[in-house]
Amino acid sequence: MTLGFANRLAGVFAGQGRLCVGIDPHAWLLSEWNLPDNAAGAREFGLRVVDAAAGLAGIVKPQVAFFERFGSRGFDALEQVIRDARDRGILVIADAKRGDVGSSVDAYGETWLGGGSPLESDAVTLNPFQGVGALSGPFALAESNGKGVFVLAATSNPEGIAGQKAKLASGQTVARSILDEVTTWNTAHTTGLLGNVGVVLGATLDLSGFELGSVPIPAPPVLAPGFGHQGASVSELKTIYGDLADGVIVSESRALLAAGPGGIRQAIAARAEEVRLASG
Amino acid sequence: MTLGFANRLAGVFAGQGRLCVGIDPHAWLLSEWNLPDNAAGAREFGLRVVDAAAGLAGIVKPQVAFFERFGSRGFDALEQVIRDARDRGILVIADAKRGDVGSSVDAYGETWLGGGSPLESDAVTLNPFQGVGALSGPFALAESNGKGVFVLAATSNPEGIAGQKAKLASGQTVARSILDEVTTWNTAHTTGLLGNVGVVLGATLDLSGFELGSVPIPAPPVLAPGFGHQGASVSELKTIYGDLADGVIVSESRALLAAGPGGIRQAIAARAEEVRLASG
Repeated sequence: MTLGFANRLAGVFAGQGRLCVGIDPHAWLLSEWNLPDNAAGAREFGLRVVDAAAGLAGIVKPQVAFFERFGSRGFDALEQVIRDARDRGILVIADAKRGDVGSSVDAYGETWLGGGSPLESDAVTLNPFQGVGALSGPFALAESNGKGVFVLAATSNPEGIAGQKAKLASGQTVARSILDEVTTWNTAHTTGLLGNVGVVLGATLDLSGFELGSVPIPAPPVLAPGFGHQGASVSELKTIYGDLADGVIVSESRALLAAGPGGIRQAIAARAEEVRLASG
Repeated sequence: MTLGFANRLAGVFAGQGRLCVGIDPHAWLLSEWNLPDNAAGAREFGLRVVDAAAGLAGIVKPQVAFFERFGSRGFDALEQVIRDARDRGILVIADAKRGDVGSSVDAYGETWLGGGSPLESDAVTLNPFQGVGALSGPFALAESNGKGVFVLAATSNPEGIAGQKAKLASGQTVARSILDEVTTWNTAHTTGLLGNVGVVLGATLDLSGFELGSVPIPAPPVLAPGFGHQGASVSELKTIYGDLADGVIVSESRALLAAGPGGIRQAIAARAEEVRLASG
């Protein structure tokens, strides 16, 4: 039987902790790392970050956009980075933010969660603008393949707040309705405390404004950007996320990557320890 | 000076009309076309659709998901299909529905709208869940490169309706606020009747429920899925879209592609004529 994503995640939390290292080959970071701004540079960057994370952090999150800008060659580089991380037992969350309907969104599911797909990852981020219900194909594929999904719910950027706080006819906020629909799915498919379908909730937000209400069980795992460079302090993890804190993945990119190829391993080690202390 | 996307679109409307042919290499369509379900099959499918559209329809819309499922090889196929269409003077709208923030969404802009990018298209669909304001990087790139953008606003699938009709603190629906933010952009960047930044508004919707209100000037071009296979009749185009009708692109995929390799050219010719009559 395939081990569910929530169980695999719990294993990573217990073993290596909650730190997730972003793999963001921006042009300016490639330049700082003395790498060329092309697909070969992005591949080398990704492989070095994976190497630096190995044994210290159990999760990496490649930002797909920074590979996609190089077209098919960029995707070839991304395939190699994903494969290398997974071969080393590191969980890969592909930050793709894909969304669509019907057979199109099913195709995105197959791309990122399908067994044997060239881009096969352990989880993918999805965008619910066309409705959480439209994502049920990838959700079902995730359940059967031991994969995870993180649905954008309340993101850490100011431009998104008005729409995510907008109210449905039911009186719920958009963000709350996403959390509810995810929970309905998890309740029907999971018996544990943590579901296989999670949400993205930015750490720099005052989550009370989204009227998220009581914490559902099973709780969704939470992919949490916004620590480090973006300003939230990891020591406030429990204050920010309340009863959702047990499922929080602390995602950091720039603050670690800016340490450069010589300093990144030490930066990850130090940060992983801080996160362990804050969430212990 | 680079010709703006709205002007290029007006030229296509005047010359070949409003029909946009979808390029959706589903597994089942590849099978019906006697093509293998792999990247080579998707490439061959795409090239044949472009060939069938040439001279009859001025716009094609590859659904990126059906290429992405083959990873880097699928992207290589997509690059060839896009290049072939553009070499023949056919406008390419990459249906990618990308969305993110900051340098990530800028990277998506460079990918699909950047001059010389391997995936360079004429326009791309974007997802506004993180706010229309978060998409300003790609909007600006589109303006400077003579490219277009279509922002999802009200889509033609039932799962998306509740969230797209949700009300902001201002009392506007989410869909209306997207239309307004797009119009604010267009007003600041366009002097013509049509803007370079458009929206996606599904033809099968009762648009009155979204409280879209009066038609803005400059009007956004409208990418309109939902005709043909999905049920809306092209003869109702003006009833459905009202004063936005002049900027509507009639997007059809399955109804045309199901005609098979032997029948697709005739299907496109017949449909292009119907669309011309309905929108003339």
